[in-house]
Order: sequence, then structure tokens, then C-alpha cells
Amino acid sequence: MKVLPLVIVLISTLSLIPDNLTGQERQTDERVIKSFFDQTLTERQSYKWLRDLCEIGPRLSGSKQSLEAIHWVKSVMDTCGFDRVYLQEVMVPHWERGMPEVAFIKDTKGNQYPLNVLAIGGSIATPAGGITAEVIEVGSLVDLEEIDQSDVSGKIVFFNPHFDQRNIQTGASYGANVSVRARGAIKAAEKGAVASVIRSVSSAYDDIPHTGTGSYHSEVDSIPAAALGVESADLLHGILELDPKAKLFLRMDCRWHPEALSYNVVGEIQGQAHPDEIIVMGGHLDSWDVGDGAHDDGAGCMHALGALKLIADLDAAPRRTIRAVMFINEENGTRGGQAYADSAVNKGENHLVAIESDAGGYSPRGFGVTASEEQRTKLESYLDLFPRNTISYFSKGGGGVDIGPLHRSTGTPMMGLVVDGQKMFDLHHSPNDIFEAVHPRELELGTASLASIVFLIDQYGL
Amino acid sequence: MKVLPLVIVLISTLSLIPDNLTGQERQTDERVIKSFFDQTLTERQSYKWLRDLCEIGPRLSGSKQSLEAIHWVKSVMDTCGFDRVYLQEVMVPHWERGMPEVAFIKDTKGNQYPLNVLAIGGSIATPAGGITAEVIEVGSLVDLEEIDQSDVSGKIVFFNPHFDQRNIQTGASYGANVSVRARGAIKAAEKGAVASVIRSVSSAYDDIPHTGTGSYHSEVDSIPAAALGVESADLLHGILELDPKAKLFLRMDCRWHPEALSYNVVGEIQGQAHPDEIIVMGGHLDSWDVGDGAHDDGAGCMHALGALKLIADLDAAPRRTIRAVMFINEENGTRGGQAYADSAVNKGENHLVAIESDAGGYSPRGFGVTASEEQRTKLESYLDLFPRNTISYFSKGGGGVDIGPLHRSTGTPMMGLVVDGQKMFDLHHSPNDIFEAVHPRELELGTASLASIVFLIDQYGL
Repeated sequence: MKVLPLVIVLISTLSLIPDNLTGQERQTDERVIKSFFDQTLTERQSYKWLRDLCEIGPRLSGSKQSLEAIHWVKSVMDTCGFDRVYLQEVMVPHWERGMPEVAFIKDTKGNQYPLNVLAIGGSIATPAGGITAEVIEVGSLVDLEEIDQSDVSGKIVFFNPHFDQRNIQTGASYGANVSVRARGAIKAAEKGAVASVIRSVSSAYDDIPHTGTGSYHSEVDSIPAAALGVESADLLHGILELDPKAKLFLRMDCRWHPEALSYNVVGEIQGQAHPDEIIVMGGHLDSWDVGDGAHDDGAGCMHALGALKLIADLDAAPRRTIRAVMFINEENGTRGGQAYADSAVNKGENHLVAIESDAGGYSPRGFGVTASEEQRTKLESYLDLFPRNTISYFSKGGGGVDIGPLHRSTGTPMMGLVVDGQKMFDLHHSPNDIFEAVHPRELELGTASLASIVFLIDQYGL
Repeated sequence: MKVLPLVIVLISTLSLIPDNLTGQERQTDERVIKSFFDQTLTERQSYKWLRDLCEIGPRLSGSKQSLEAIHWVKSVMDTCGFDRVYLQEVMVPHWERGMPEVAFIKDTKGNQYPLNVLAIGGSIATPAGGITAEVIEVGSLVDLEEIDQSDVSGKIVFFNPHFDQRNIQTGASYGANVSVRARGAIKAAEKGAVASVIRSVSSAYDDIPHTGTGSYHSEVDSIPAAALGVESADLLHGILELDPKAKLFLRMDCRWHPEALSYNVVGEIQGQAHPDEIIVMGGHLDSWDVGDGAHDDGAGCMHALGALKLIADLDAAPRRTIRAVMFINEENGTRGGQAYADSAVNKGENHLVAIESDAGGYSPRGFGVTASEEQRTKLESYLDLFPRNTISYFSKGGGGVDIGPLHRSTGTPMMGLVVDGQKMFDLHHSPNDIFEAVHPRELELGTASLASIVFLIDQYGL
């Protein structure tokens, strides 16, 4: 190692402090950010709110519990000293699972093996008596395309893609398989299948099925679609290897209701210097209809709510207008995110940045940033203000499903909180996504990290 | 932000690549490191070994299970293709908890409330019939010093310091309270107390007591010492507030045995270019006698074992000699670490670096480094070889209890793997430190991170 580069590193590190940031301002920033971390770790307000939220139950769009959660969040915000708290109306799809699903595999000798199954969100029901059919197993959508229609027609297609454990960002492996959940029923129906089942998109090896949204195509017959627990998928695979004529029984009771009136919940603190520049942060209040939606995305909502409360409690009011939004309907429609974007466009609002937390309530690691390189570099200059083992990067690319519409319609830069994601897809969209799976300290580090970056952007712009 | 600093950053980043590292070497390094992560995340060998290790049971020095674990590890190493596998003899203290402890608080009205309690490691027993005495509660060792001997004499001292939740590095809060566990009985006995109980040094709010090592002083009477579950400590505190004359009953059955023969287990791959330069990594194989010692420190042992196996499986032999050591007796004596250091000194061995993993099997975040600034900067130049969300820093200071003696007696630079520590002190030294509390992906990321840094140091020295 030469000595020269060390000198250059030192110079360049000093130069990375934004031009407008004096030593005294930096000390103030450090003090405020430390107060955010100290307060969240000792008071655990986001965690306490998350417990209350989870006690309501799962919050699928259109459900009674989703409305209960909306009014509960609004009532909490009303106590927080924000300048405005309001609901933003939005019509949402309303699907119900109905009675618990039943599935089993019956071999040609008459032996019957129960399988753990959940309907994929949005699926139609089976006939009341269920469906019984032979099964054709494939690894992927592409594999199915190569099979003759005659080999699929009248059967149940079993998509059995394994989760790629190699990705350290587990979301990449999730993303690689989620198309099977989203489009498997369409592709199976095109080949004449009577139903579609998939191996749950899960990083865990257990028998808890994971649901999630599926879709149909208007020009293709809709067929029932379900997700098997991973162990059930392996059992089905093993039985089919021994006995290819074994038949799968599937009964599901799902139903669609008319679209329902629902709401985004918005809390706002008005800016003193630049009230027309808006910094928005949020998560989605809806969840799937199993578990508590604790990590997905109660955690993100409580991150944003907790962060806005921290900023509201500061001695000085913010320079810009800051909002926390609990979006509705991320899971099966993104209607809340779209309604927020439409409203922003209609009102001609100027959003400086939109930040989403929808990766779970685990220890924070960084932010993904979709913005100009100059903006991202400015964010990077704040890295040494974050305590070690919290935020360690502002990487290229990132955002969130709910803030995507705003980004696309207005060009607003967007950011997503990245957390330690090793466990997320063990429980995501499953009955295991419960309050008890969230650790108070890990959750609160996310709240403090979010409050800190919002505070810094409020102070220095983007 | 000015443009000039960006140019300087770019130049300095390029310059940070060690002088001897060509583009082709860097590609090879990236390929090897990727293979370590891919292999650990898919094969989960460390996790499988950890399960086997935990099935043996807790492994306190001198116990039957500790010997069973030693021979199990050696037998595993024997299958790994290492050049040498051997035991290193060391005499260790041998303490036993005996029959389960009993504690309750009895108020002056005769109401009796059971308390969850564990003897502090190394404590003497109470008399067979137990001890019953009034209690004096203090917050710290310092608080006790300010109290008159007459107010303490004949009583049980109850140290009730709370865990400081503000430290993001939870080990700092642990360290702040651990002196009460280590020296409380001495300080209490100096004032004439008949026993000492402490609030468990725990970041969780539950009623699982946490043990750990305590000490006595040859010139002060030894008195029984125990740790209460946190909820039990709060209960005791509450009752004493209402009824200061309430009496605590404590019965413990602990005993000391003669020192026992035990062993460090060493696996070694001999270096081709510099066989006399040794890179040693390790964890400690002993644990407390409750739970499985899964995070503390089965995880660290399996990190080191897994990392050595990854290096043994590479096509090319290492340049330096690389060892994985499972040290014995970290928890209550550090005899294994001392024996290793003594042997190194006696043989005149040249250790390039010693690396310990003893912070748990959670997601890796960085390495703490006790070395020259030049060495640490060289390590920092490797940061971009580590996948995002694994190792993000090489910070000043760090190492491990087991490698401390080697560092002190030979000046060998030392490093400690830092993992996401938010949960560690919820379960550390408690019956909750079990295999099921370890996540396979988080554990394996540690193994791959350790293998990667050892590989790089082997290639390029320190």
C-alpha cells in the first residue's frame, strides 16, 4: 500500500461533506440523529403500535379489519401533534378466501395424503365438491410451454420451482419465482388445465403455505390457483414420481365481492421554509389475509408513523412538508399508491422525494435510491452520521410498489429502506408473519434510520 | 457537491487496490468468494454440523458433554481432508450446577412468590436447607459501596441494574453490567451479606435467567451468587417496595470438582509458499450448562470449521498455513486460549493474524481489527469484494477472548467477526440459546465471510 492514496482518501472524505454543512450544523445533525436512535430503542413506540395493529388481525383490502386498521391508525395520528391527518378515498378490490382450503393426493392404490394449501389471492373457487384430476408437474412457466396441450388438458398443473438460496438479497429469488404465482393459472389454462398449484415461493423448509396475488387474463378461462407448503410440494413430487396417475383433490371456497370503499391514511407536518416541497414516506397498511401482516407491511407503516412522530417532537418545525402515508391495497392492486399519485398530480404537488419501507422490520442495512447520481452521492455524504450497524450504503436502484406511481407520473426520486432480509421470505405472505416474529430493537432501528434520512433531506434538500 | 472530490474519490478507490493485485487476480478473488457464498447458502454445512453439535447438549468445561463435543469435532475434522487434526491438552476448571435452583420471596404476611433463578457460574452452594434472609436492593456496585455495612450484614444483596437499550452494539450494554455478575458476590460479602442475587444481564424482557461466570476473592468470604429472570427481578423489586422486610429464600446445589483434562481441537491445512506463516481462526467449543450454546459459541466454531473446509476444497492449496481452532474454556477460565498461546510461544510459531467468531450466528456486518492502521487499511481495500449486506467495514478494535492471550504474548494482530447483534443478549448464557434460535442463512453468511477474509489474507498477506 502506498502512502499517497491515504492522503487523497482523507482529503476526499472531508470534501464529501456537503458545501452547506458547517461543523456546527453537523454537530446538531449528530445530536438529533442520536436522539432518534436513543428514543426509539428505549421507548419502542413503533413496536407498541405494531402490537396494537396486529391485534386487529390481517388486513386484506376491502376487509372489515382493513377498515378497522385505517381508523385505528388515523386515531393514533390524531394524538401525535401532526398538522393534518386525513383519509384519502380509494376504491379497492375485495376478495375473500372463504372456508379453509382442502387438498390431498390420492394414489392409485387408494392411499390419501393431506397437503397444506392456501388459495392464491384472487383465485376463483373450485366447484363446491372440489376438483379431482391427474397432475402434471413442471419446474417453470417455460417448461410448461414445451409440453403438448394434450398432456396438460384436463389435469392440474403443479409448478414446482425451488427457491434459489444463493441470492444474498433474497428478494431476487422471490422475484424469480413470483411470476409462476402471478401467471401460472393463465399459462396452465391456456393448455387446458383445470387448476394450477405451485410450490410456495418461500425460503424456508416447512409446510406453511405462502399466498400472494395471482392474475387471470380476460381471454383465457379462469381456473382455481393455489400454493402448497414446501413440504407438501415435496410430498406431491415424491408420490408423482412413484405413481404418475395419482390424483390431486382441491377444494377452495374463495369469492369476489364488489369493489369496496377504502382509504390511504395521511399524516402531515407542514414545512416552515419550503411548505410546497413535500417529503413523503410510507408503507402499506393492507396485508394478506393470513398471519398479522407484521413484517409485510405493518413494520413499514410503523416505521413511517414512528419517524413522523420523532420529527413532530423535535424542538424546531421542519423546513419542508413531511408526510407519512399508510397506503392501502399494495398487495393486490396498488390502488392506494395510484390514488396518492393521481392526487399529487391533480393538486400540482411538488414532491422532493418518496421513501418506502416494505422489506420487513429487520435490522436496517441501507437505502436503495432511484435518483440522479448527484443526488445519490449527496445522500452518501451522510453515511458517517448513521451509527455503525445501521445504514451502510445508498445504493443505485430501489423504491417501493406504493411510491412507484408517484415516481412514474412525476419523476419524483424514490428510495427504499433495505433491511437484513435473510428471514423475510421464510414468512412473507404466510400465517407465520405475526407480531412475535418482529424484534423490537430491529424494528426501532428502522424507524430511527428513516427519521434520520428524512431529517437530513429536510435540512439540506436533495 | 463539487465535482472535483468525485474525481479524487475515484482515483483513491483505484489506488486502494493492493499493489500486487492485478485485474486477473481480482477476478479470481471474486470468483472464489462468490463460490464460498453460493456453496454455504446451498449446502448449509455449518448449519448441519451445528445441529449435530447442539444435539450433544450444553458443553461446560469439564463436563461429559464437553468431551463428547471435542471428540465429535475431531471426528468431523478427520473427514474434511485437512493436513493435520489434533487435540491440544489443557486442564480446565470443572463446576457443576447440581439440582435445579429454588428461590422465592416471602412477604411479612406469609405470601410466597416463586422466582426464576440460575446460579452464577462458579458459585458455591447454599446450605442444603437453603438461605432465608432479608434483602437489600442496589442498582450497582458503586451504590453498594455507599451503604453502611450494618445495613447489609446478614442480608442478601439484590443488584438490579437495568440493561441500557440505547447501545446499538448491545455488547457495550452487556459489558457495562457484567461486572455486577462477575464481582457482585465479592462486594456483597465484603459488607457482610450472606448471598448475592442479580438481575440477569439480558436485553430481553422475559423471565429466563442468564448465567455467566462469577468470581470470588481469596481474602473475602465466598457467598452464593445467583441471577434472577428479569421479570422475577421486577417482581422482587415491587414486593420490596411494598414490604421491605420480605425475605428471600435461595437454595442452590452447586459444587466444584477437581480440575479436569480437556482439549482444544485444531484442524490445519499446511501452506505451500509460506508454511511458517500461520493464519488462525476459531471459536470456543465450551458453553454454559443451559441451552445448547448454539449462538455462544457453537456458531463461531462452525463458522471456523466451515471456513477451513471451504478452503480445503479449493483447487489450489493455500500459500500460508491455516488453522481452525475450537478453543475450550472461554466461559470460565480462558485456559484453552492460554494453552494455544503458550504452545505458539514455546514452538516459536509465527502467526500472521488470529480471527475469532464469538458474537453469535447472526448476519455478518463487519470485522473489528486490532492491528496497525496500515494493515487495517489494506483490509478495507477488500471491502468491495464482499457481497452487499455482508461485510461492510473493518473497524478499529476487536478480537476475541480466546485469541487475546496469543495477541498479548506475541503481538499477533487480531480480528473479530461482528454480526447483527440485536438479539444476542436476549438469549446469551440462557436456556434460550438453542439450535432453533439460529437461522441457517445468517449462520452461513458468517462462514462465507470468514472464509473470504482468510482466503484474501492468505493470498496477499496482511
